[in-house]
Amino acid sequence: MPKPIIMDCDPGHDDAIAIFLAAGSAEVDIQAITTVSGNALIEHTTRNALIIAEKAGLGHVPVAEGAGEPLVRHAVTAPHIHGESGLEGPALPEPEKSVDSRHAVDLTAELLLHAEEPITLVPTGPLTNIAWLLKRYPAVKKNIAGIVLMGGGSYGNWSPAAEFNIYADPEAAHIVFESGLPITMAGLDLTHQALAGEEEKELLRGADTNAAAFTAELLEYFAGTYHSLFGFSAAPIHDACAAAFTIDENVFATEHLPVTVETRGIYTTGMTVIDALQTTGKAPNVHVARELNQEVFWKMIRSSLERLP
Amino acid sequence: MPKPIIMDCDPGHDDAIAIFLAAGSAEVDIQAITTVSGNALIEHTTRNALIIAEKAGLGHVPVAEGAGEPLVRHAVTAPHIHGESGLEGPALPEPEKSVDSRHAVDLTAELLLHAEEPITLVPTGPLTNIAWLLKRYPAVKKNIAGIVLMGGGSYGNWSPAAEFNIYADPEAAHIVFESGLPITMAGLDLTHQALAGEEEKELLRGADTNAAAFTAELLEYFAGTYHSLFGFSAAPIHDACAAAFTIDENVFATEHLPVTVETRGIYTTGMTVIDALQTTGKAPNVHVARELNQEVFWKMIRSSLERLP
Amino acid sequence: MPKPIIMDCDPGHDDAIAIFLAAGSAEVDIQAITTVSGNALIEHTTRNALIIAEKAGLGHVPVAEGAGEPLVRHAVTAPHIHGESGLEGPALPEPEKSVDSRHAVDLTAELLLHAEEPITLVPTGPLTNIAWLLKRYPAVKKNIAGIVLMGGGSYGNWSPAAEFNIYADPEAAHIVFESGLPITMAGLDLTHQALAGEEEKELLRGADTNAAAFTAELLEYFAGTYHSLFGFSAAPIHDACAAAFTIDENVFATEHLPVTVETRGIYTTGMTVIDALQTTGKAPNVHVARELNQEVFWKMIRSSLERLP
Amino acid sequence: MPKPIIMDCDPGHDDAIAIFLAAGSAEVDIQAITTVSGNALIEHTTRNALIIAEKAGLGHVPVAEGAGEPLVRHAVTAPHIHGESGLEGPALPEPEKSVDSRHAVDLTAELLLHAEEPITLVPTGPLTNIAWLLKRYPAVKKNIAGIVLMGGGSYGNWSPAAEFNIYADPEAAHIVFESGLPITMAGLDLTHQALAGEEEKELLRGADTNAAAFTAELLEYFAGTYHSLFGFSAAPIHDACAAAFTIDENVFATEHLPVTVETRGIYTTGMTVIDALQTTGKAPNVHVARELNQEVFWKMIRSSLERLP
Repeated sequence: MPKPIIMDCDPGHDDAIAIFLAAGSAEVDIQAITTVSGNALIEHTTRNALIIAEKAGLGHVPVAEGAGEPLVRHAVTAPHIHGESGLEGPALPEPEKSVDSRHAVDLTAELLLHAEEPITLVPTGPLTNIAWLLKRYPAVKKNIAGIVLMGGGSYGNWSPAAEFNIYADPEAAHIVFESGLPITMAGLDLTHQALAGEEEKELLRGADTNAAAFTAELLEYFAGTYHSLFGFSAAPIHDACAAAFTIDENVFATEHLPVTVETRGIYTTGMTVIDALQTTGKAPNVHVARELNQEVFWKMIRSSLERLP
Repeated sequence: MPKPIIMDCDPGHDDAIAIFLAAGSAEVDIQAITTVSGNALIEHTTRNALIIAEKAGLGHVPVAEGAGEPLVRHAVTAPHIHGESGLEGPALPEPEKSVDSRHAVDLTAELLLHAEEPITLVPTGPLTNIAWLLKRYPAVKKNIAGIVLMGGGSYGNWSPAAEFNIYADPEAAHIVFESGLPITMAGLDLTHQALAGEEEKELLRGADTNAAAFTAELLEYFAGTYHSLFGFSAAPIHDACAAAFTIDENVFATEHLPVTVETRGIYTTGMTVIDALQTTGKAPNVHVARELNQEVFWKMIRSSLERLP
Repeated sequence: MPKPIIMDCDPGHDDAIAIFLAAGSAEVDIQAITTVSGNALIEHTTRNALIIAEKAGLGHVPVAEGAGEPLVRHAVTAPHIHGESGLEGPALPEPEKSVDSRHAVDLTAELLLHAEEPITLVPTGPLTNIAWLLKRYPAVKKNIAGIVLMGGGSYGNWSPAAEFNIYADPEAAHIVFESGLPITMAGLDLTHQALAGEEEKELLRGADTNAAAFTAELLEYFAGTYHSLFGFSAAPIHDACAAAFTIDENVFATEHLPVTVETRGIYTTGMTVIDALQTTGKAPNVHVARELNQEVFWKMIRSSLERLP
Repeated sequence: MPKPIIMDCDPGHDDAIAIFLAAGSAEVDIQAITTVSGNALIEHTTRNALIIAEKAGLGHVPVAEGAGEPLVRHAVTAPHIHGESGLEGPALPEPEKSVDSRHAVDLTAELLLHAEEPITLVPTGPLTNIAWLLKRYPAVKKNIAGIVLMGGGSYGNWSPAAEFNIYADPEAAHIVFESGLPITMAGLDLTHQALAGEEEKELLRGADTNAAAFTAELLEYFAGTYHSLFGFSAAPIHDACAAAFTIDENVFATEHLPVTVETRGIYTTGMTVIDALQTTGKAPNVHVARELNQEVFWKMIRSSLERLP
């Protein structure tokens, strides 16, 4: 029986590929796609989620809009990386699918409270919706199988110490990391290994579906901004790493460590503080992703793209 | 002509080896040894500095006592690593040499203001004295050739994010890092490569001097605490790395990057925030040590130990 | 036509009197009572709100439960002031009225979005629900006539600088104070003038209703804790001040000043920072209550108590 | 026998009057005047101190220069209040007196260590020198009779919560306030009572000395900036309040309360956090000035001005 998951995202080029990956996999069952402000403003990420859901053949899956602003801060977006729309590059059709009438947090709570088995949450944007869910509906916790998130790492891409998703809503991240729920963190240490170079791009194009063609266009744009901004030779498919782990845990090795989130530093707000040398004596609370199994990862994406429209 | 240096330290097992290394080298000329509270309380680090200076044949070099407390915080020490005395392990003789009557900061200023050529400062403890010097005697800056320090890194050993020397006086470190002076930072990324394993210990013992024998005793104790506290298989000779760089810059490769010091974080105070991906657009201010040349490093220490009493 | 208000509260002895005051007044129309964790845990404050609503003859008014925890922090309560139940002192009946099925934030949004005229919010507990409302339903802002709150002041009662309501959820308070909505702040400078001494208590008892008798019991308990904790000779009826202002703005004089909320200080978190000397050059955003008109205030309460069951 | 005092100042119009007041009093004996960066840069405040010392007939008293920068921050000055020179208004002669060769901190330590009886420190600028003294020469503490300072208060004049002297070096102030030494704090609550209105100015002019004439010129300029910046009708002679208390403790009433200094707030850094309601349970450490005895104060100044050249 496939594992039920809810994808909470801010598409976002790599979020889109994460959705394709999960949608094309027989191992997971997407119960809902929820959106959050992050890579782009909420109206864009919601529209993008609808478009991607359609392209992924997820017409039956509800797409619900969530938080337009972080818990206590103002929205931060990344137009220089994802474009103003959040999904710059390919031509984007008007979505036919319409957004669910429920708020992301309410829909997620409803699904969790009526779930037959615990659901895994897969957040690939700022953690606003998840934190809000835990504060607003504390009873859902027992129905969350775990949280497999893209975010954080031992260094940053938005500031020297902070990765974008955590930086954008550090208070939300702090709440999630301190929640006691099982957390797997696919941070930059891992996702910067998931580079779609020439060989990988060719592998994916070979799937020869519309989704594969769309993915190729996404990667082209994304590689361009990563090259000009960070000097990367290929685009890192951050968010797909989190989705991949819900399909096959062999896709990356993890280390169980104490991790918390800095919310007050002058230079370090939004940092995931990983206690690698166990200096704090705290119990491990996060499975920190370390090494990517390249073969498993890319084959999995190829295989999903083949099954999509 | 040997390069003039002032060693500002908190001996400390590895400080002691750093002093031996510099004392036995023809490339550097130690103008003074100054002490600071750090690994142990100031009365201990001063006494230890006197003992080590004698053992290193530095009877003519002034040893001056400096700050007993951080600039604005209370003293933090590391008795579980260095013992209460700061130099636990070998039998410690009563020093015959007596401490200079001047305060470390005043002596350093005097030497700098009368220097024929700029002097390199080599701090291997908390940066209290150096920050104080820059605040109290701003005119000395032009006579400082550079600062080669042991401290910081991309992760911590005292807290998840902070190395001990920076943690112990983060405000001082912030002042030093923002001073505009040329800084070389031998942080944990580097110094955890400087592990005195069996082979290295044998190499050093082969020097066959009193200093070499004393070093062996220091390493034995230090390896013990590093093993029990951090699970290390060998002791990292942190401070010797900074001294080594003043003797031969080939001892480690560096990368010129923007680095600042966090002073406010809940979990990150004392972290050296390294902008490896250049997210801030700031000019590089620190030469961050990356890779140790093992051969150069250990031969250099062996060679110095051979020349000492 | 009476002014529509929504009372967001954490009863609490003085919240109870605030509800009596508003319920007995022809000038205001209570559209809903919503609850928040504050003086006591949310299950207590909700139960207390139901009890008070009944005693106030507000059987028709929905009572909805809100946030059980601050936006990002853990709940802080004040059992040493209000007792564990939040309403210690009088015998408390089992409420017959039942809680509304909607969450406080959702109910408030619904009322606002369907309001014929803008509604005034009267929060007398931590500002969690109000901040959440503004983040979750930004469209409601145009239907909020203003916020008349009890909280803050130029000094504190929970810490040297912070009043309890603001201290308990400073991030929420910061969001509310920066919202651009018209805010009237009845802080401690004002509410410590609203002391129910012997004369005032006699005046209120003279109303000779059940509500008046219940009020007398509340005041007795509340005076006791204020006496033993703070050495006050009489109990300050904090929350009634906010309600009073919605009935008659002559009840206290205000000064329009820039005010913000500290969320990061070591000693000052939860402080309402009032720029009395206009040192910041910011535009005034808060009507700061200064001087209580004792006569208007006490007569108003007496008059309301007379009209209640 | 007169009480020995050391005046640590940043003249500054009101510092100048404080020096005149102490110089003309038989009750106190000025052992030294030391300077600090504050109202103006250190070169100005030192020059001004020399000028004022001469005008006060203190040719025999050493004037030593101290900290040009706060302990860890950069200098903040107040040219819009005191002019660029710190003493704008009257014509300023070239000082004949020259500055002591010792640093303020070293001179103060020397005087304290050789004192026959404990000396009272009277800081009327940022507390940099005093904090530095306590850190650098911990042994002097036993020879400090007390610290009577101008600074702080329950509200601010530099920011909504912070008075200038404390704001300019909050870390120094924190060290001083936590030192355990007896502290009397003449803050804004008091010094804003010390307004030199028409009547007071006439009283002082009546002293009919050069110092009185100079004082009149100082007050004219100072009243001007206080009027235009804060809308004050007369100039508050802040610093003279501290000096006055060393001469006659009847000049103002105090309350013994727990007080600390905020160093981290976003809006409150530099605030003296006064625990008026005793919410912290801490022991009182500061005598907080409350009410000025106008008659004692102004007569004292008049009397001093009469005795000066």
